[in-house]
Amino acid sequence: MSQPSGPAQRSGVPLRLGIAGLGTVGIGVVKIVQRHADLLAARTGRPITITAITARDRTKNRDADLSGYAWVEDAVTLAQRPDVDIFIELMGGHEGAANASLRAAIASGKDVVTANKALLAHHGHALALMAEAAGQVIRFEAAVAGGIPVVKSLTEGLAGNGMRRVMGVMNGTCNYILTRMESAGLPYDQVFEEARQLGYLEADPNLDVGGIDAAHKLSLLAAIAFGTKVCFDKVELEGIGRISIDDIRRAGDMGYKIKLLGVAQMTGRGLEQRMTPCLVPMASPFGTLTGGTNMVVLEGDSVGQIVLRGPGAGEGPTASAVMSDVVEIARGTRLPTFGQPACTLVDPIPAKATAPAPYYLRLELLDKPGALAKVATVLGDEGISIDRMRQYGHENTSAPVLIVTHKTTRDAINHAINRLPSTNVVQDVPVAIRIEEV
Amino acid sequence: MSQPSGPAQRSGVPLRLGIAGLGTVGIGVVKIVQRHADLLAARTGRPITITAITARDRTKNRDADLSGYAWVEDAVTLAQRPDVDIFIELMGGHEGAANASLRAAIASGKDVVTANKALLAHHGHALALMAEAAGQVIRFEAAVAGGIPVVKSLTEGLAGNGMRRVMGVMNGTCNYILTRMESAGLPYDQVFEEARQLGYLEADPNLDVGGIDAAHKLSLLAAIAFGTKVCFDKVELEGIGRISIDDIRRAGDMGYKIKLLGVAQMTGRGLEQRMTPCLVPMASPFGTLTGGTNMVVLEGDSVGQIVLRGPGAGEGPTASAVMSDVVEIARGTRLPTFGQPACTLVDPIPAKATAPAPYYLRLELLDKPGALAKVATVLGDEGISIDRMRQYGHENTSAPVLIVTHKTTRDAINHAINRLPSTNVVQDVPVAIRIEEV
Repeated sequence: MSQPSGPAQRSGVPLRLGIAGLGTVGIGVVKIVQRHADLLAARTGRPITITAITARDRTKNRDADLSGYAWVEDAVTLAQRPDVDIFIELMGGHEGAANASLRAAIASGKDVVTANKALLAHHGHALALMAEAAGQVIRFEAAVAGGIPVVKSLTEGLAGNGMRRVMGVMNGTCNYILTRMESAGLPYDQVFEEARQLGYLEADPNLDVGGIDAAHKLSLLAAIAFGTKVCFDKVELEGIGRISIDDIRRAGDMGYKIKLLGVAQMTGRGLEQRMTPCLVPMASPFGTLTGGTNMVVLEGDSVGQIVLRGPGAGEGPTASAVMSDVVEIARGTRLPTFGQPACTLVDPIPAKATAPAPYYLRLELLDKPGALAKVATVLGDEGISIDRMRQYGHENTSAPVLIVTHKTTRDAINHAINRLPSTNVVQDVPVAIRIEEV
Repeated sequence: MSQPSGPAQRSGVPLRLGIAGLGTVGIGVVKIVQRHADLLAARTGRPITITAITARDRTKNRDADLSGYAWVEDAVTLAQRPDVDIFIELMGGHEGAANASLRAAIASGKDVVTANKALLAHHGHALALMAEAAGQVIRFEAAVAGGIPVVKSLTEGLAGNGMRRVMGVMNGTCNYILTRMESAGLPYDQVFEEARQLGYLEADPNLDVGGIDAAHKLSLLAAIAFGTKVCFDKVELEGIGRISIDDIRRAGDMGYKIKLLGVAQMTGRGLEQRMTPCLVPMASPFGTLTGGTNMVVLEGDSVGQIVLRGPGAGEGPTASAVMSDVVEIARGTRLPTFGQPACTLVDPIPAKATAPAPYYLRLELLDKPGALAKVATVLGDEGISIDRMRQYGHENTSAPVLIVTHKTTRDAINHAINRLPSTNVVQDVPVAIRIEEV
């Protein structure tokens, strides 16, 4: 171990960036490179410069001086330029230009830094194989939880741990909507519309509120944590569109908050990946998270629980994450995309069922004698025992009932919900939400 | 950037560890190496083995099988062995064997991983210079905040940021004592004694309750954050020994918690480093921190605020941090000790005064006409304006008064406190504690 490698090897040689995509994040990267030239050189031992840029619209007015950089008409051409060492892909989208240019960059002997969670969730394994065969690196800190250095924390900071569970609130828009529904007492549709007008939603809002964007991120963390191939299509997915203000209020009465929570864990039954609304205790780290802030919880067999919290989006935070990858490469650090060589990642066995958990049930009980006993009997028949129960006063003909169960399975909950209509004492379809123990 | 370095270069070659110090952390490292041989090899591309060990007492019964490792009588000899690639120093103490063996390791061409915050706070700059001149690395993730990957987050994850402020609750024992005083309503002396009996205190308890241990850690983070030489002797230091249960209760009445909080920030007036009791808002990240858990807040000009929380001590968490450094070196990553070459770190100009802040004042007001007006006049004369004030009912001859000021200077607060006795309406010496805006 006596010969120094990395920074010393390349000391002084400029590192040249080519940036594809000049939206908020791309301009944020330009600003950091311009503002912190000295700082970056001190920390990496070499100048970091931008040589070439591309974006859809050259004429758009952008909040940065781009006059010193070569404008290239398309991303593939930029990726192949001999004066680019790192290809920075900030275009988004999991097919088309992003995919093609990233492949072109690797084929041309460039390293890649990307913020593109969709691309990596769909093609990350193939791209990692290609990059590693070519001796190139792909880094993607900005793809997960914005400014929070969670990819590095998991890949490097907790590298001595067998990982047990990775959890995250990783879509700021969803957390904003849920927080705002609660604080303003507004229904989902109205807050969704507010969020749209504030520009918080993707062009396809289902990426946000459907949980897809957050599930992309979760699948990338799961690959690192468990040494498995990225397996986005096996993430159990449920968005926040069916969460009512009633659920938020009633969950609050029982001491919980509702979050769109991602959970990946390796169990005896296989790899479990979920991105679904969950109840979390109010006093837990996730329970105290409000607004657009992101949070990731990493649980390892030696370290226990690490909680990381910070801004999950925005110009500065996301550009900060991009630049952390640039600095890493500039220093000569060359890590496999998912923390171990892609050719050693295994196909995960997806868990057939989610791990047992307590559940929260909300149902409307009709005002009939013995109604509650009938509900309790159905739950008991399915092996579900009740931890806490609260019945509210009757409004018209029915009364809301909240039940927190002991640990049980989703199957048992589903069976019970299917049987409840036959009791003739329950109005509407009961709501059942998993309670995640954090 | 086309030739791969790091992992590929050394792929397959075993990395051999020599461990000096077999207390809790050392045994934790042994257990991880034994339990996770496959995982570590997958993540680094090479086997990680232990070849030699040393500790004060060979005969002590330890909770691990050490039979496969060469027992060496002293740490310096171990550090010089040809079959050791990384010297892992877990003995502690900032002089004597730790210092001598670490220097011997560097001189013998070894890399070093250490958990020794005291050693680095006192000699970190000299050791980093020595290591970097020799082409060796010194890594110390385990020296700061136990299992939380804060050294890596700052050195790598936020490397694109001009850092503004670094804050931390980094001594679990102090936070345990303050939390327990509050929850059990017990005085400091009694909880201190409990902590001693539980084995939570260092042999010299002043390292904990005097804030020295936490200040060591803060000085290391400040060096990375601001590119300055470690400057432990310029940390403003005040322990928790004078915090009364009254202060904790009254601060709670005003919406605050009391924490032993480290703050390092670069201001126009120079580098400010403090490790002192502070009030933090109850709903802030630090305000929700209880027991022995650690928390670090990193604020950068691009990323904004990142909060990291986790176990700050213990076998598993600290060994996890040690192993993250071992993995880093095994992968071929070679970073300067403080994130940039030690020869480029500058002498910090210590700030002459702490930045202005709101202050909390608690005083006992005598039951005399115009008493409160006299206090308010003194504060006004010193340019201190009052944000919130609360007077409680009189007990015997005096009444507790709590004041939260607007932002002011420590000097103004000190002047006011010195003048208050002359009003003849204040009993005892008023308490003044800085409120840190988080």
